[in-house]
Amino acid sequence: MKSGYDISGNFRDLYRLAEDLKIPERRIIDFSTASNPLGISKKIKADLRKHLKYLHSYPDEEAKRLRNRLARHNAIEPETILCGNGSTALVYLLARALRPLKVIIPVPTFSIYERACYTCCDSEIIYCRLKHENNFDIDPGEFIKTMEENLLVEERQNVNFPVSGSPPFPSFNMVFLCNPNNPTGRLLKKDKIKEISEAAGRLGCYLVVDEAFIDFCPADSVIKDVAESTKLIVLRSMSPFYALPGLRFGYGVFPRQLAAGLKEYKEPWTVNGLAQRAAMAALKDEAYRRETFRAIQDEKKYLEKNFRKMGIEFLTSAANFYLVKTDNAGEICRQLQKKGILLSGGAHFSGLDSAHIRIAVKSHRENSILIKELKKIFGPGDGQHAV
Amino acid sequence: MKSGYDISGNFRDLYRLAEDLKIPERRIIDFSTASNPLGISKKIKADLRKHLKYLHSYPDEEAKRLRNRLARHNAIEPETILCGNGSTALVYLLARALRPLKVIIPVPTFSIYERACYTCCDSEIIYCRLKHENNFDIDPGEFIKTMEENLLVEERQNVNFPVSGSPPFPSFNMVFLCNPNNPTGRLLKKDKIKEISEAAGRLGCYLVVDEAFIDFCPADSVIKDVAESTKLIVLRSMSPFYALPGLRFGYGVFPRQLAAGLKEYKEPWTVNGLAQRAAMAALKDEAYRRETFRAIQDEKKYLEKNFRKMGIEFLTSAANFYLVKTDNAGEICRQLQKKGILLSGGAHFSGLDSAHIRIAVKSHRENSILIKELKKIFGPGDGQHAV
Repeated sequence: MKSGYDISGNFRDLYRLAEDLKIPERRIIDFSTASNPLGISKKIKADLRKHLKYLHSYPDEEAKRLRNRLARHNAIEPETILCGNGSTALVYLLARALRPLKVIIPVPTFSIYERACYTCCDSEIIYCRLKHENNFDIDPGEFIKTMEENLLVEERQNVNFPVSGSPPFPSFNMVFLCNPNNPTGRLLKKDKIKEISEAAGRLGCYLVVDEAFIDFCPADSVIKDVAESTKLIVLRSMSPFYALPGLRFGYGVFPRQLAAGLKEYKEPWTVNGLAQRAAMAALKDEAYRRETFRAIQDEKKYLEKNFRKMGIEFLTSAANFYLVKTDNAGEICRQLQKKGILLSGGAHFSGLDSAHIRIAVKSHRENSILIKELKKIFGPGDGQHAV
Repeated sequence: MKSGYDISGNFRDLYRLAEDLKIPERRIIDFSTASNPLGISKKIKADLRKHLKYLHSYPDEEAKRLRNRLARHNAIEPETILCGNGSTALVYLLARALRPLKVIIPVPTFSIYERACYTCCDSEIIYCRLKHENNFDIDPGEFIKTMEENLLVEERQNVNFPVSGSPPFPSFNMVFLCNPNNPTGRLLKKDKIKEISEAAGRLGCYLVVDEAFIDFCPADSVIKDVAESTKLIVLRSMSPFYALPGLRFGYGVFPRQLAAGLKEYKEPWTVNGLAQRAAMAALKDEAYRRETFRAIQDEKKYLEKNFRKMGIEFLTSAANFYLVKTDNAGEICRQLQKKGILLSGGAHFSGLDSAHIRIAVKSHRENSILIKELKKIFGPGDGQHAV
């Protein structure tokens, strides 16, 4: 694969596109990153500015104050939280530390789960293909059946936690669920996730629920249920909701014994000092959260109305992006790229064909530009293709 | 080990000490972190302030512009550079990706090499104990003998580079050298490192030279010699010289084929956007480099003069810290801690006993406070114990 391009020949990120177009990166309109269109909050920015003078110190390796705040914010225990250099780093940590034998990944989804398991261990990956005709929704009953058919309870005692000795983790199978799912935006309600979590408990396999986009629909988080489980893991990111992907911060909530083992296994100083500050400031910023909900809601209405008008087929979404299906997806991506508008082609995601585009919800100005460009392709139309 | 303490019962970092003393972290005088006492440069700070508004974008996964600048700055090829979330992350990457069978570590040294090999793979670690009577200096002849006696050429073909296929790395033994060494501050001259590197080449083992503190004595870097070697690896950090440990940035220079393999193996988005900006700004900041050399030189003279007066035994150092030997080291650390002055006890470092303290060179105000406190313990004296 040529560096900078995905397998459809589209650019993977704004840096390579800016290079190709010979324009500054800030002039790219990036619909491929689902990051809060309000941008980084003023309060966070002010706090980071003040904190620049403390960069001469190492970050707190234990991120203790931050973990305490996250615990209070989520009504959970600080000992169950581990912070990471983005939640991606925690996916890799899990793959490396637990070396799952078998992994179930419902697809389409974020490619990192597959990539981490593929890079770090020789897991057998079982893809559970979600059906387009079901809007790529997970059917919990069917999904649990797939789990039961594929995941036997394995007893492998020699876990590689060399630093902390060998805590007895009875099983190494693992299931990844992204909720709401990326790139479909589809939400599995909390009670359904809990059904799957109970099945994971019965089967003795870990269920990793990636809630990177749950801040857009917080009522369906299962973060509080980790305490009651020995197999449920919840990953959180601050990138999408707080517009902070550049700073790298995510955290995970783990069964207590697993958190203790992983803590010893983890590399030191992984979460930089500014990321720790930003995360603490973010938790306090209730006004930004309110404003975000309002802005995202307004812009989603605007985009949906226009997609419908043009007859563009899309999935209704619980997150800040849409999955759009159109036969000429690759061509659309290429055409808009030439104008400095970057879209995520389906090839970016495991188990998705190239007839899809993931479109992030951006500011009204940016969304209007996109709609204007799409109208040139689809015509103003009046189709009704939303699911 | 109780969290926050090292095995001598001293605090490991300023965060836990501040907590214990119930004072803000900024009030701790931290002689345990060898970070430039000038603090973060004004130019870097200004650049970071401007860049805060771009945190809504992911960092450039390839850090392409930064790698180009680093390449120009060091007169090397950008394709041989990989950036990491601190150079520590690159030590872990090497351990994970290459899974060395046998590892030689001269001690005392930075504990991370040992910790990474211990955590990531089942390497047999061979410690080469440097002698106190030789100022913990490495004798290249003896060191090469240790390498020859212990490292046979191993042929192991099934390297785990699953993403990129399996490039044929003929050997997985590894030698770590920290130069100048942490915590001794002792420098091995460039020609000696090159002798060891040639031996590594003959023995088919990797030589990893950690040059985290080489910016204080840049003439002895072997960074340019990587291009001529298939086994030499050089790691660099921007933390000590540019006072940036809070931001996490390091880079490594690798033989070309290894760099390509590691790139595929690496986690995505590991180096945050601000770290990339800071590193680029740092390279341009010639004035800060000049000022640093001057300030460090002045303060080293001041500290050495006073150590000598008090009869404190210390090693002359090529870096911005001193290793001090004194029987009551643990007690000194504890006494000063109570006053908010943090020192690094010997127990922080592999192969060093607790009769040692590593003391960073800090600002004149801070150094004066330390000297005043040490005089209370050692008396003003007029001993002559420097090596």
